[in-house]
Amino acid sequence: MSDLTRPVAVPDQLDSSSPPGRLIKAPENFLDREGLVNAAKQNGNGRRSFMRSAFAAAAAATAATANASAAPATAQGDPNILTLPAHSTGLGQPVVTDGYGMPSKWEAAVQRRQSPGLTQTAQASVSFAPLQSLFGIVTPNGLHFERHHQGWWDIDPSQHRLMINGSDPRLVKKPLVLTVDELMRLPAVSRFHFIECGANTGMEWGNVAVPTCQYTHGMLSCCEFTGVPLKTLLDMAGSNTRLGRYVLAEGADGSSMTRTVPMELIENGEVLVAYGQNGEMLRPENGYPLRLVVPGVQGVSWVKYLRRIEVGDQPYGTKDETLHYVDLMPGGLQRQYTSVQECKSVVTTPSGGQVLLDRGFYSINGLAWSGRGKVAKVDVSVDGGRNWRRARLQGPVLDKCLTRFSLDWVWDGQPALVQSRATDSTGYVQPTMRQLRAVRGSRSIYHNNAVQTWHVQANGEVANVQLA
Amino acid sequence: MSDLTRPVAVPDQLDSSSPPGRLIKAPENFLDREGLVNAAKQNGNGRRSFMRSAFAAAAAATAATANASAAPATAQGDPNILTLPAHSTGLGQPVVTDGYGMPSKWEAAVQRRQSPGLTQTAQASVSFAPLQSLFGIVTPNGLHFERHHQGWWDIDPSQHRLMINGSDPRLVKKPLVLTVDELMRLPAVSRFHFIECGANTGMEWGNVAVPTCQYTHGMLSCCEFTGVPLKTLLDMAGSNTRLGRYVLAEGADGSSMTRTVPMELIENGEVLVAYGQNGEMLRPENGYPLRLVVPGVQGVSWVKYLRRIEVGDQPYGTKDETLHYVDLMPGGLQRQYTSVQECKSVVTTPSGGQVLLDRGFYSINGLAWSGRGKVAKVDVSVDGGRNWRRARLQGPVLDKCLTRFSLDWVWDGQPALVQSRATDSTGYVQPTMRQLRAVRGSRSIYHNNAVQTWHVQANGEVANVQLA
Repeated sequence: MSDLTRPVAVPDQLDSSSPPGRLIKAPENFLDREGLVNAAKQNGNGRRSFMRSAFAAAAAATAATANASAAPATAQGDPNILTLPAHSTGLGQPVVTDGYGMPSKWEAAVQRRQSPGLTQTAQASVSFAPLQSLFGIVTPNGLHFERHHQGWWDIDPSQHRLMINGSDPRLVKKPLVLTVDELMRLPAVSRFHFIECGANTGMEWGNVAVPTCQYTHGMLSCCEFTGVPLKTLLDMAGSNTRLGRYVLAEGADGSSMTRTVPMELIENGEVLVAYGQNGEMLRPENGYPLRLVVPGVQGVSWVKYLRRIEVGDQPYGTKDETLHYVDLMPGGLQRQYTSVQECKSVVTTPSGGQVLLDRGFYSINGLAWSGRGKVAKVDVSVDGGRNWRRARLQGPVLDKCLTRFSLDWVWDGQPALVQSRATDSTGYVQPTMRQLRAVRGSRSIYHNNAVQTWHVQANGEVANVQLA
Repeated sequence: MSDLTRPVAVPDQLDSSSPPGRLIKAPENFLDREGLVNAAKQNGNGRRSFMRSAFAAAAAATAATANASAAPATAQGDPNILTLPAHSTGLGQPVVTDGYGMPSKWEAAVQRRQSPGLTQTAQASVSFAPLQSLFGIVTPNGLHFERHHQGWWDIDPSQHRLMINGSDPRLVKKPLVLTVDELMRLPAVSRFHFIECGANTGMEWGNVAVPTCQYTHGMLSCCEFTGVPLKTLLDMAGSNTRLGRYVLAEGADGSSMTRTVPMELIENGEVLVAYGQNGEMLRPENGYPLRLVVPGVQGVSWVKYLRRIEVGDQPYGTKDETLHYVDLMPGGLQRQYTSVQECKSVVTTPSGGQVLLDRGFYSINGLAWSGRGKVAKVDVSVDGGRNWRRARLQGPVLDKCLTRFSLDWVWDGQPALVQSRATDSTGYVQPTMRQLRAVRGSRSIYHNNAVQTWHVQANGEVANVQLA
C-alpha cells in the first residue's frame, strides 16, 4: 500500500505520530485550465489512435464532436480561449430534500410499458420492466414489473392486518391478528430474489414473436426483499405442520387473490411475509404494505396486499389455480400447480428492437435465473445454437436470484443468431422452444422457459425470431 | 417435494404424461365470505392468546381495531353481515405505464433531509439518507445521500465525454476521448459497495450529539454499481503503470472537484468508471452520467460528473485534498490522504429519535462496513459496552459493502445504552470514541468511525449520548 492508503492502526495500537501532515508540491499541470489545454493537444493524436483500435468502431459517428466537449470548446480555433459548458462554471441545483429523488430527464424513455391490447382493461393488465436498459441484477422499484388482477391500491398500513388461522381448529392453536407495526418488530431477514410471472414469455408459445426483450421477458424483476419468515408466524400461532401441509395466502384487494403454498417451501424459512423491497417499503403496485415472497415460485403466489394465511390439510384449488395459471397441454390435458419457475435465461444486449450501429466489439450480456437454486453456467451462441461459448457470471451468484452474464463478441457485420442457454445447480438445462413444444404443445401461455433467439441482421437491426 | 412442487424433467427426458391435470375438491371454507367469518370467530380467541405471548407487548395499543380490519368489519356486531373495505371490493388503479413508479403516499416522511444550518448554501450541502427507515443493504436511489460542492446538474449524456491522458506524454501513449455510448459498449462489471462521506458522523468529534441516526450516520449509502474497470481504460490508452503511480480524477461540475487515486487501487480492477446504480443509470445528484467508484474509499474520491482521468507520477495535492478533507490532529498536526473508510457500524433500530412504545421483544438491527474488506463480526451491547453479544450477520456478506446485523432483545423497561462494535476481515476492531479522541483529538470533522451509543430511556425515548 502507498502512503495514500496506509492502514490506520487498530485501536489498541493507535499512535498519534503515525499519520502526520505533509506538504506536497503541486504538479505543473494542476490548474484545470492549462491541464485541459495540454490534454486537448495530446488528445488530437490520441483520438486517432483510439479510432484504429478494435474497440473503437462506434467512435466514427461521434468523432466530429468529441473534442469539442471533453476538452472544452475553443473559440476561433485558438486552444487558449476556452468556452466551458454552463455546468462547469455555474451554480447547480440545491440538495434534494423535499420529495423523493428521480431519474435524469434524459432517461425518461426507460419505463415500464403496457403491451397494447394484451388485456381488456388496464386494471387487469401488465406493465413490463425495461430489461434491455437495466444493469446488474437489482431492478429499481420504480421499474419493477406490474401484474394486477383488479388494479392496485395504496392501502393505509395503520388499518391493515394480517391474520393467521387454520381451516380447522386443530391446525392452528392460537390464531393471530397482527398489525404491520407488530410484524415489523419481529426478527426479519433480507434476501435477493427474482420474481417472474408464470406467463412471462407466454406469447412465444403460439409463435407470436413480440418485438422486444421488454415484452418477451419483462415480467421479471429482482429485489432485496425484507420480511419475517412465515414459519416464525406459524410457530407463534401454534400451527400443526404435521397435519397442515398447505397454506392458503389471501390478498386484500378486489381480485380476491388466493393461492396454495405447500408447507415444505415454508418450513425451511424461505417464504417471507415481506414489507421491504430494495431497502424501503414495498411499492403500492407491488402489494404495499405486505406481500408474500415465495422464492423460485411464479409471481402469482407472491400474494400482494396479504391479509390472511390459512393453514389447511390439502391444496385449496382456488380460482387462481384452477381457472387461471393452468398450463394447457396437448390432448386436452393440463398441468396444474406448476409453480416453480424452471431455469431460464435471456440475452438483453443485443436484443429485439436494438440496432448495432457498426461492426466491432460488443459485450453480449443478459440475465439467467432458476427457481430451483443457483445458476451454474450460461452458454452463449451467435450462430443459432451450433457453437457455444461459456459466458462470465457476475457475482454474487445467489439462490433463486437473477445472475448477470456477459461475453465478449466482435461482430463482423454478418447476420447472427444470438442465444443464451442456462444450466442451474440441479443440472437442469434450459430447453429449446422445439424441445419444449414437443412435450407441451403450443396452447399454453405459462412457463415458457425456452432459449430465446435474437436475429442480428446485416443492417444491425435485431429481431425476435423462432428457429424451426 | 409434494405434488405442488414436483420437479419438471430436464429437456432430454421430457415426458408428456407426467404432469396431467387433476381435479381437486374445493375445501369447505373455500369461499372467501364464509372463510373470513369462520376465521373471525376463531380469531376472537386467538387474539387474546397472542396478547399474552412474549411477542405481543405492542399489540395493546392496536387491539381495539384489529378485528375490524383483518377480519372484515361487522355491522351491528352480527358476524354474518360484512362491510369490506373499498380496496377489497372495488376496481383499483391501472398499471403504471406513464412515468416512473413512486413510493406509497403513506411513506412520504421517509426522505433525505438536510441538516439546517450545517452549510451556508443548499448547493454546497448535504442531504442525509434515512438509515432508520431502511432495510437490508440496498439504498433506493431516491434516498441515496447527497453531498454537493456546487450543486447538481442533469448533464446531457450525448454531450458528455471522458478523457484519459497523462501528466506527461510518457505516462499515457494513446490519450483517449470516449463518449458515454462508447464507454457503455466496453465489458462492464456490477458490484455492491457502500459509499460513505469522509465527514460522516463528523459532528460527534466535538461532542455535538446530533439527535438521529439519519444525521449522525446518514452520509452513507449502498448500491449495486455498474461500470467499466478504470484499468481497462488505462490499458486501452497505453498507460505506463510503472511510472504513473497515481491518477487525478476530475469532475465536470462547477466545483472543479479533483482527487488523487493511487494506482494500486486501480490495478486490481476494483475502481470503476460507473454509469449504473441499482440497475439504472446514475441519478443526476449522484453524478449522472459518469462517476468514479473507488470501493472502500471516502465518497469525495468517487468523483461525480467524471470528465477526465489523468495519469501522473506523484500525488496531486489538489484543493480537495489539501484545503478540504484533511484531518486536524492534536498539536497542530494533520492527517492527509486518509482515504480509506475504516471499519464502522451503527445500530439503526433502536436509534436516536425513535420511541419504544412498550416493553418486550425488539430486534436490534443495524449496519456494519469496512473499507478494508468484509465485516467479520458485530457485537452488540445494551449496557454501554460492559457486556457484548454476537449479532447475526445477514448474507451475502460482501467486500466493502454494507452488512446488516441483528440481535434479539427483550426490553425490560429499564434505561439501556445500546452499542454495536464491528470487526473486519483484517482483524481491525471499531474503536470507542474515547480511544479515537485519545489519538486524534476532537478538532477533526473526518473519519470518525467510533462506536455509537444510543440511550434508551425508561420512557422509551432514544437519545444520542457520548460516554465519558
